[in-house]
Amino acid sequence: MSMLDKMIKNAAGRFVPEKINGKPVVPFMGVGKYRPKGVHHSPAITSNIDYPADGNKQVSTLKQALIKAGLRDGMTISTHHHFREGDLVANMVFDCAKELGVKNLCWFPSASFSCHSYLLKYLDDGTISHIEGSMNGPLGRYCSEGKMSKTAVLRSHGGRYQAIQDGDVIIDIAVIGAGCADPFGNANGVNGPSASGLLGFALADAQYADKVIVVTDNMVPFPCIPWQIQGNYVDFTVQVDRVGIPEKIVSGTTEVTRSPDRLLIAEMTARFCDVTGIIHDGFSFQAGAGGTALSVGNYFGDIMRKKGIKARFARGGSNKFLVKMLEEGLVESAFHSG
Amino acid sequence: MSMLDKMIKNAAGRFVPEKINGKPVVPFMGVGKYRPKGVHHSPAITSNIDYPADGNKQVSTLKQALIKAGLRDGMTISTHHHFREGDLVANMVFDCAKELGVKNLCWFPSASFSCHSYLLKYLDDGTISHIEGSMNGPLGRYCSEGKMSKTAVLRSHGGRYQAIQDGDVIIDIAVIGAGCADPFGNANGVNGPSASGLLGFALADAQYADKVIVVTDNMVPFPCIPWQIQGNYVDFTVQVDRVGIPEKIVSGTTEVTRSPDRLLIAEMTARFCDVTGIIHDGFSFQAGAGGTALSVGNYFGDIMRKKGIKARFARGGSNKFLVKMLEEGLVESAFHSG
Repeated sequence: MSMLDKMIKNAAGRFVPEKINGKPVVPFMGVGKYRPKGVHHSPAITSNIDYPADGNKQVSTLKQALIKAGLRDGMTISTHHHFREGDLVANMVFDCAKELGVKNLCWFPSASFSCHSYLLKYLDDGTISHIEGSMNGPLGRYCSEGKMSKTAVLRSHGGRYQAIQDGDVIIDIAVIGAGCADPFGNANGVNGPSASGLLGFALADAQYADKVIVVTDNMVPFPCIPWQIQGNYVDFTVQVDRVGIPEKIVSGTTEVTRSPDRLLIAEMTARFCDVTGIIHDGFSFQAGAGGTALSVGNYFGDIMRKKGIKARFARGGSNKFLVKMLEEGLVESAFHSG
Repeated sequence: MSMLDKMIKNAAGRFVPEKINGKPVVPFMGVGKYRPKGVHHSPAITSNIDYPADGNKQVSTLKQALIKAGLRDGMTISTHHHFREGDLVANMVFDCAKELGVKNLCWFPSASFSCHSYLLKYLDDGTISHIEGSMNGPLGRYCSEGKMSKTAVLRSHGGRYQAIQDGDVIIDIAVIGAGCADPFGNANGVNGPSASGLLGFALADAQYADKVIVVTDNMVPFPCIPWQIQGNYVDFTVQVDRVGIPEKIVSGTTEVTRSPDRLLIAEMTARFCDVTGIIHDGFSFQAGAGGTALSVGNYFGDIMRKKGIKARFARGGSNKFLVKMLEEGLVESAFHSG
């Protein structure tokens, strides 16, 4: 954000920029006060003329797929975080971009992890201009220190889906890593050496991105069953050696934090939610993963017990904390969101 | 179609109207010659402000739901045909429209059946101006005799999905009958007294219609699992006494025709497909239901045996004819499409 950008006061009395990265943004107007206008984003109509008659959309390399997808300066490239600390796909994408000399890309992951500190060099050399998504560990520090050339935007997972659906963020190319895929582009995360579980965070990307590339290390004959990513949305498929490191896919974010600072943040977050009145009988919440988020869920449990209320449902990874709340009857249903 | 509409010659040398019901249409230009432009249809962005905070979208009657959905003259109203001869929903919808004095509606079913001859009176009195979909039995006769006030448009099931997706047909209100639903709008066709099987033909309607109403005779507490229709797309839910007549849901269209005329039509259709070169190793086809369509599939089998080729996949109801071809190895995979 340029220091010259105009600041305006939002309904909470805070000064916020009128534009972020040159694009007008809507300041907070108060609960239920903002009514969005317009229609959902819609990608261009495609035609069978432009796809192989036999349905085989496989190209030889990720670089080739990115070239065919029209990769160029200033585009927004999305990836998902289901491989967590074991993700190899996002780093590969920007290696290709660097080789091709493409600049000023916006990286739009559903989340980032320490393994993506590999991308700091591409933030330094201008391959990536900024991140819209989450910025953890070294990437977070990089942002906090003001080193990113454009302004980082952090979104909740639900907010990310909304932003894609409503066209607030237009994804030029979505690169979807999958544990299993067929050459047509049907894909899932449940089979193969890099199985990650569900690919829910890539659904909006598949549906709304202008071009969609599916990358897998486990290409199976058509049809890949079950398909969570629908091949109908996919433009190109690629087989690579590895998309993820299995032992790191499960790591890091499925244990409650022991850090006193983070526990305090979690407790304050839960108390904040309680004070605002959004914790009521029949409410719902996303517990998320990550030590702090899991702890928030636990504090929610304490509040529900004290109030004698329960949640209609909770979304989150199906971890032991959520399952315990389900068994205890504190949440009526638990949905696994990926 | 008015006799004054201008006719133009298409690439097959036939004269076709430039407009249908006042809307420009694209004449056949030759295989692979037409490249559609523009973007997919996208419904308006909605806001939580306009929905109940507890997620309960249930209204008391279908009529109330139609009023809330803004039913008015000239709208396009879609229904699906999964209840086949046992469908009660489409007739109910137009009873409501009649009561409300709404005129000139376009009925856009995924298919129609003899049970819908009930709607002839609404075609007569101007409640319904025309049908875009299929016109079987009495409705077909009505069209053939030139009694419909506007021009009927018949589309294939795949073509219907394309037309919705690309905005060729904009559905104002989709009314989706479901064997099971919850008040939020999650719905399936596999549970309850009017279970019909999958609701695949209503997916495009749910995703692209401006307003979506789910009607069920089996409202269950949230969440309805599995959900095939996503409640996120649904605006209103309604419980009625009955949405379908179970013994008629399975009737009529799952046996091969014995009519010599229809068998000849089926054989000629299969021969036509063969001559055009679209029956080749690795092709795919939708067998559909209905006596004639099933027979076409059987003739395809004969051609494949003779040529020593097989189909990559076939779509269709999972009837015995398709299953036999699967077992014989004539088709590699069979997909159940609804």
